[in-house]
Order: sequence, then structure tokens, then C-alpha cells
Amino acid sequence: MSKIQAVTHYLNEQEAGLALFSDPVSIQYLTGFYSDPHERHLFLFVFRDREPLLFLPALEVNSAKRSLDFEVVGYQDAENPWAKLKAKLPAVSGPILAEFDSLNLTRYQGLKQVFDNSFEDLTPFINRMKLIKSADEIAKLKYAGSFADKAVQIGFEAISLDKTENDLITEIEFGMKKLGVKKMSFDTMVLSAENAADPHGIPGANVIQNNALLLFDLGTENNGYMSDMTRTVAVGQPDTFKKDIYQLCLEAQLTALEWIKPGVTAAEVDAAARNVIAKAGYGEYFNHRLGHGIGMSVHEFPSIMAGNDLVLEEGMAFSVEPGIYIPGKVGVRIEDCGVVTKNGFDLFTNTPKELLYF
Amino acid sequence: MSKIQAVTHYLNEQEAGLALFSDPVSIQYLTGFYSDPHERHLFLFVFRDREPLLFLPALEVNSAKRSLDFEVVGYQDAENPWAKLKAKLPAVSGPILAEFDSLNLTRYQGLKQVFDNSFEDLTPFINRMKLIKSADEIAKLKYAGSFADKAVQIGFEAISLDKTENDLITEIEFGMKKLGVKKMSFDTMVLSAENAADPHGIPGANVIQNNALLLFDLGTENNGYMSDMTRTVAVGQPDTFKKDIYQLCLEAQLTALEWIKPGVTAAEVDAAARNVIAKAGYGEYFNHRLGHGIGMSVHEFPSIMAGNDLVLEEGMAFSVEPGIYIPGKVGVRIEDCGVVTKNGFDLFTNTPKELLYF
Repeated sequence: MSKIQAVTHYLNEQEAGLALFSDPVSIQYLTGFYSDPHERHLFLFVFRDREPLLFLPALEVNSAKRSLDFEVVGYQDAENPWAKLKAKLPAVSGPILAEFDSLNLTRYQGLKQVFDNSFEDLTPFINRMKLIKSADEIAKLKYAGSFADKAVQIGFEAISLDKTENDLITEIEFGMKKLGVKKMSFDTMVLSAENAADPHGIPGANVIQNNALLLFDLGTENNGYMSDMTRTVAVGQPDTFKKDIYQLCLEAQLTALEWIKPGVTAAEVDAAARNVIAKAGYGEYFNHRLGHGIGMSVHEFPSIMAGNDLVLEEGMAFSVEPGIYIPGKVGVRIEDCGVVTKNGFDLFTNTPKELLYF
Repeated sequence: MSKIQAVTHYLNEQEAGLALFSDPVSIQYLTGFYSDPHERHLFLFVFRDREPLLFLPALEVNSAKRSLDFEVVGYQDAENPWAKLKAKLPAVSGPILAEFDSLNLTRYQGLKQVFDNSFEDLTPFINRMKLIKSADEIAKLKYAGSFADKAVQIGFEAISLDKTENDLITEIEFGMKKLGVKKMSFDTMVLSAENAADPHGIPGANVIQNNALLLFDLGTENNGYMSDMTRTVAVGQPDTFKKDIYQLCLEAQLTALEWIKPGVTAAEVDAAARNVIAKAGYGEYFNHRLGHGIGMSVHEFPSIMAGNDLVLEEGMAFSVEPGIYIPGKVGVRIEDCGVVTKNGFDLFTNTPKELLYF
């Protein structure tokens, strides 16, 4: 069953009028076609009993037609998109299922001019659909992961006490471009010493410090799929306290990785890592969830955190990234993404995790 | 009057309960603090009679506190953000003014649990506020523009028949990183020959073609402000037809630039360029608006297009970018951003526009 067919099947089950997708990544997931309309509008309509229809800015019509085999309708900037949609779309009965997470109120108000129907949230369905990765998707995530491994390797080799955080980022991203990576999956982070003690610290002109830890958090996009990895390494000889915090974080990550298998909940995996850090007395310094789903988006479902009773299943892909951030003192995070297998968890990234010295 | 004070003033005028900002760029514009919460929540509340309050993920609290002098409230991933907001916020009377353009339905539903008030759209107010750039903002836009000039220069110098579009992008972005630019304002586009005939063509492994045109569309972010420029140049000796199309596009751009001054409408400026191209018989191949506003976002108000009767005022900043795209044959676009002055239009980018040969 194709992904569009799965949507149609759901529409029939729900006796809904149509499904309306507005998240460019969802549209790419369902159709293979990606376009970011910015403040313009991009909608995919999936019906119960006719072919889908893609609605987008006129200047994207040609490229959409090249990759889609169903109807594509463009609108000019000076046209009223809602009037055009009303003229193009058939009346349907039953609720409109829409992605509430990506539909803003302005577009919602416009769509209320097109449809008299009620609107219901499609987000849980599409999130559930994206949640279980196919073998093809897992292969793509592993391929992307192999580039994250290469990227941190470039970063490690570039470490030098006369360079700044930004210098290292530049070398990593240039290296990736040369390997054909068009896009990092988010802004590369290289954080030295105390700057890493802020979980969302901002890299800058800080020179790489000696006898301190250095944190790399990066990812790539390959064939529409994302990688995301964090490694923290030693520059020179950090003091024992910093090394102990590193070992504690590593123990937390390895413990969580051991826990993962079908049947365990997301909250239990989070707790497995959190308990290790809390027992050592540093619970308050691990102030974010353990992980996030990954796929065509670098952050998606499931959220690996307290309160999430989602039972893990084979094919769910997510990050495991405990961190310990003691302001002014030390910051460590260790992150790998992987996928739940029949009996455990298969990692997408394979860079070593014992504390490396540079 | 500070920007926050201007919001408070508007709230009093409207007798509104409070203003709720959810667009990270608006929050940066108003407070100087930028954070992208991804699927988490970031809200700035501005009140009539008390200090503002920023609500965001717990792991961002420290960096927010460092740059803000009003209350910052964080929430943990496992907390219910709506319950926490309800406990933290005072009841207010009057409508909640919210940014409908950036508020998705999921967040709207959550906020409806916090407030019994009605919601009204704040987007027109904040867009209007961002529309008129201060002297400081204009200086920042010119500074960003100077980097776009440097970036195309790097691209021009890198042109070679043994390189691909992606090779040129890599060299441009590496050059920018070395100059301290952390971020391009959008994915750099280098399009050779027929690939440029698609207005949103995608750069790839195409080798730079000889006797053809080559299009560069790029921009940088500097101090939170964006640049955006397009230049089309000749590689080898393109045929007369291609050169004529180039001259036509240039004439359209120069004509529009001449039109711009306070009192003229956005639609009139669009028409000025469009008429030049239409009279020559190529109107159908200029299938997008003439321009878009620019500031802390690379696309913002005003839209320079048919139907927009906005009267231009001193301080409005936008792009002027006519394009002619004849599928399979030739693609040209020429773009500069600038700001409306007392008597005309002051450009942010200064790369020459006569057809350059490489």
C-alpha cells in the first residue's frame, strides 16, 4: 500500500471528507516532492474517491509536475488563493482532517472560506505513520549517520588551540560540502569548555581551550533523511572532575541504550538514563528530555521523556542524548540516533565513545 | 519609545488584554533575544500594566535571562505547558492579540485552555511595525548587503568549466564562513544554463556550461539582518537571444528602481517592471511578484506585486527582482534589495549589472 493509499484508507475508516497536508516535510514524505513555500501556501489534498491534488505557488508548478503523477494547481501571487481553491475543489462531506501542528491561524481562516466542514486534527495519524520507519528509510538514516561520523572526524582532526569554535564549524561544513552534503540538518555546534555547560550554548569566536572538554553536536541531510550526533572530547588534560562527569554521562547513555527494545516505554528509557545521573547527585543538571524522534525531520516523534508512555516498537528511530551541564564548570552530552530492532537498538552513528584526547 | 512600549501603547489603544508573540523572529525584533523552539513552545507576553514575560523550554532559560531584564519562565519537557502558563499568567480582560501567521492550531488549542478571552490577529500590527526600518536597521541591512556583494564576487572568481553548480556554492559558502558569516539567509542557488530557466530550479551536479548564462541567488545573515541578491552572468559567448533577454530583464529592473519613491504604490512598481517585459512579448515568462520585503526575515512585508495598493513610505525595505524564464532556453533574474528614501530608493547591494563575461 502506498503512503497516499494509507491516507485514503484512514479517510474511509474515519468517514472524513478529505485530508489536507500543509507541512512541507509531510508532503515530501507522502509524495517525494519537496518545496518550502515560505509565506506562500502549499497544500496537498487527499480524497476518498479521486486523485490527490497539490496546490502551490505558480512558480513551483513545473518542478512539481515533473515529479508527481496527479493534479497540480498553481496560484499567482496576485490571485486570491482561497477563491481559487474553492473553484478547484469538489465539495466533500465529513470533517476535513488537517495537520494542526503545521496549520497557522491565517491559513485556517482562509480555508474556512473554502470549506463549510468542521476541521479535525490529522497530526496524530501522520505522526504515527512517520513513527515506524521502513527498511528503505532505515537504510537512508544509516547513510546519513555515516556522514555525521565523517563530520565529527573532520572536527576532531581540526582541533587546535589557535582556532575558534567557528573555525572548526567552518572546516566541518566545508568538508561535508566537498563530500556532496548539501545541507547540515541544523546549525553545527562546537562548544569549548564553559560554553558547553549551556545546553543550547551558541558557538562563536571563543578560542578552543586547553585542559577542557569540547562538544560537537551536528548532523547532515542526505536524500531527505537527517542525522544527528553529539560527541564530547578532551583537549589536553581536563581535571578529574570533568572526566568523572564525562564517565557519568557515558554510563547514563549506555544504560539507556541497553534498555531499549520493543515493549519498553519511552518514559522508562528516559528514566534509565536519568536515574544514573540522579543517583550520582547531578539530576538537576540533566535538564532536557533524553531524546527525540528522527527521520525526514531532525526532531519528530517519539519524544523520549518522562510522562510519555508510548510503548516502543520495532522501526521507531530516535536519539539518545543525556547531558550534564554544570554552569561555569563543565558541559557534556553524548548522542547517537538509532532504530528499535526486534531485540534492541541499532545505532546510526559509530564514532567511539570512550573519552578521546586531542 | 522602545518596541515593547509601542506594543503596550497599541494594547491600550485597542483596549486589549495582552499581546502574545510566537514568531521567534518577532520576539528577536522586540527583545533582541532569539531562540528557535522547534516543536517546543516559545511565547512572549506583553501586558498593558506589567512587565513582559517570556515563556520557553527550560533549557533555554539561562541564555534568555542573560539578555532580558524581565521575567523568564521555563517549562520542562515533561510538564504541561498550558497548565504552567495558566498558573503563571494573570487573568486579563479584553481580547488576546496573537500572531495568526505564526500560531499553529495545536498551540491555539492549548492557549484556549489558558485564556477564556477571544483571540484577534496581531499580524497586521507587527508587520506594519517591522515595515518601517530605523536608521540602525538600515545600517545593518547595508552591512549584510556588503557580504552578498562579496559572496557573488567569490562565485564569479570561482567560475570554471570543470566545476559544478555545487562546487561554486561550496566555495561561496566557505568564503563567507571564513569572513565570519555564520549563516546564509537561504540555500545558495547557482544555476547554469537551462537549470536557471526554472525560477526555483535546484542546483546540483550540473557542470557549468559554456556559451550560456549562469545565475547566482544568495544572501547572508549578519547581526540578525538578511541580505538577498541575484546576478546572472555570461559564461563564454551566449547567443544574441540570451543576451537580449538579459538586457530586457535589466531594463525592467532599472525601470522599476526609477519608479520607487514615497507615494507610489507597490503595485505600480511591479507594473513598471512587468510592462517592460510584457511589451517585448515575454510577459508570461515573468511569473512571480517583483519583490518582497526584507529585514530580520529574508521574506517579509511588503509584497511588491499586482493588487497591493500599499503606498510606499520612507524606510520600507524590499527586493526588486524581475525574472524571465523561458523553459529549455534561458533564465535570467536580477535582484537588489534597498530602502525607500525621501526621494527614491537606496540599494543595499552594489555589484555591477551590465552583463559580465567569464
